[in-house]
Amino acid sequence: MAKGKVLLVLYEGGEHAIQERKLLGSLENELGIIRGYIEEQGYELVSTSDKDPEPNSIVDKELADAEIVITTPFFPAYITKTRIANAPKLKMAITAGVGSDHVDLNAANERKITVTEVTGSNVVSVAEHVIMTILVLVRNFVPAHEQAINGKWDIAAAAKQEYDLEDKVISTVGAGRIGYRVLERLVAFNPKKLYYYDYQELPADAIKKLNDLSLILNGRGDIVERVADLGDMVSRSDIVTINCPLHEKSRGLFNKELISKMKKGSYLVNTARGAITIEQDVADAVNSGHLAGYGGDVWYPQPAPPDHPWRSMKNPYGGGNAMTPHVSGTSLDAQARYSQGVKNILESYFTGKHDYRPQDVIVIDGDYATKAYGQRK
Amino acid sequence: MAKGKVLLVLYEGGEHAIQERKLLGSLENELGIIRGYIEEQGYELVSTSDKDPEPNSIVDKELADAEIVITTPFFPAYITKTRIANAPKLKMAITAGVGSDHVDLNAANERKITVTEVTGSNVVSVAEHVIMTILVLVRNFVPAHEQAINGKWDIAAAAKQEYDLEDKVISTVGAGRIGYRVLERLVAFNPKKLYYYDYQELPADAIKKLNDLSLILNGRGDIVERVADLGDMVSRSDIVTINCPLHEKSRGLFNKELISKMKKGSYLVNTARGAITIEQDVADAVNSGHLAGYGGDVWYPQPAPPDHPWRSMKNPYGGGNAMTPHVSGTSLDAQARYSQGVKNILESYFTGKHDYRPQDVIVIDGDYATKAYGQRK
Repeated sequence: MAKGKVLLVLYEGGEHAIQERKLLGSLENELGIIRGYIEEQGYELVSTSDKDPEPNSIVDKELADAEIVITTPFFPAYITKTRIANAPKLKMAITAGVGSDHVDLNAANERKITVTEVTGSNVVSVAEHVIMTILVLVRNFVPAHEQAINGKWDIAAAAKQEYDLEDKVISTVGAGRIGYRVLERLVAFNPKKLYYYDYQELPADAIKKLNDLSLILNGRGDIVERVADLGDMVSRSDIVTINCPLHEKSRGLFNKELISKMKKGSYLVNTARGAITIEQDVADAVNSGHLAGYGGDVWYPQPAPPDHPWRSMKNPYGGGNAMTPHVSGTSLDAQARYSQGVKNILESYFTGKHDYRPQDVIVIDGDYATKAYGQRK
Repeated sequence: MAKGKVLLVLYEGGEHAIQERKLLGSLENELGIIRGYIEEQGYELVSTSDKDPEPNSIVDKELADAEIVITTPFFPAYITKTRIANAPKLKMAITAGVGSDHVDLNAANERKITVTEVTGSNVVSVAEHVIMTILVLVRNFVPAHEQAINGKWDIAAAAKQEYDLEDKVISTVGAGRIGYRVLERLVAFNPKKLYYYDYQELPADAIKKLNDLSLILNGRGDIVERVADLGDMVSRSDIVTINCPLHEKSRGLFNKELISKMKKGSYLVNTARGAITIEQDVADAVNSGHLAGYGGDVWYPQPAPPDHPWRSMKNPYGGGNAMTPHVSGTSLDAQARYSQGVKNILESYFTGKHDYRPQDVIVIDGDYATKAYGQRK
């Protein structure tokens, strides 16, 4: 008899997972080497993609006697308060990736369930996606590409909303592991200014690094500045990128009111979490042209329904939509990293050492181990 | 009676040019302030979009007694040997933008016609387009975006060919004004190595700058290296970007043979000139999957015909096409810069000072003023 059960919830990769075995985050490839490893520890591994609806999914059934649940932010099995109440043996929830907001952290604390994630496993991937999305929007890639594919050639139609990133004001909401990497990558584009809004100031050496880079690249050593008021910051910005976790204070933050403070014709990029914005307010702003564009890869819920307003939104010139499904953090390179990270967390657990990397621990022993999620009960 | 005629060849912007007056490169907006300026000098300005076919277009008719012709690389009026022979009064050909290969430079030299362009006016724009295109290909943006638009959600299909740019080997063919700016922007992405192939070595301070940046960003001060053999360089590269002018030695350079030396699954980005590659060889390589993708915005001829093979090419996974019409250098920011640059060149000409910025002069007094175009007869 197994010592306990590990429940692994992943999406079905189908033919794609067979064609590309490096697609480790798929049900078929089960994070690579993990099954053999778990079974060697005397545990049972159950893997499934059947997570909805609560309470009639296989996740509900299997969670009832699971000790560990492994989920991803890309295809989140929501570990709700009810599900936690119905899982008396649950001791650990692991996020294969970064961002554990699909787990009810307060409920986990009450039950003293440890919540971990693989911090850093895809911060580079997401930062790259942010830069790509900014360029795609500002340079008006999508309408231009559609012309190329559709046999057309109308430079004016594409160029009339094409700008350079150079000399623009770019802001990040959140300057943590991802937001800071975004800033690092932006300096070489010679922006007019880089602003950030965060609950804590960047360390002096991190600020110096950005300014040193700018001095070398742009001849100006004062590229970055913290702004205390979010409304103030967005009102000064040509491009705003959201790089903060979803928590009680950031939920619905970019609503009609805040968006109305953004510059007409500015761009908003969100690879953090869909619920940080009010979806219809964003779509309205793009469709009206108040925002020249919105892009990113996070939605709520996920998978996004076929009629989600972000699928069809367009600015009055026919561009301004740079949405993708939630793929920014799941490049093949990132999948290798977070699969290895999950194995490391399991190892810390199974050996009883619980010597997790401190940055991987979200909640433990009934309390938040990080301030990033904002809540302190 | 006018002192002489200036012929200006621009594309028709139609409604777009009316909606957006900053679209200065359109026939309707005539590079902004130029008409009034030219007429003040006592010259006649004729502007047209009717450039084909030779010899029955308005360009052919008007060139017959023009003293100056102004064209663009985006919608090139080819100033051929025959057209030059039929334009006895022609003294100056100005390219509103960068890249004067649509002018027969040898024929211009024989006739001692001065050929100028607005060097630097869009180097930043093109460098940004290169970075965007690399990210779009490596991160597999287009298939992912199509899912978002088409109501689908299939992460595996998008992620199975999604990589990070980090830790990849990236090479540029040409490390001039654009290629070097591409290198500057790539350092922060922490590539494994940046290679360049060029007829001349980068200045020591330019190399030091890239290595200093890498030391700060990546902890490694040896990011950039010149490679003497092009085949050798492409065989080591995950991504190759072409940033050299079209000239006699670069025409058809990326043919079947050179492409076969590229790594299987690598990417090729070309924002330089379409004719530097053999179009069907590129399409075959993408369609077969030898290249994971090709992107860029230069074609031959332009406008590209509706059945150009680059419009429909796709790798076996359905992605790998990041083509746009020729828009990289014609952002609204760039249009402002090259319109001003054309005015400056005209001023140098009309005042008789001929004090052009040296870097703007391609051929003058019957000889090449730059080595960049390769030819020395």
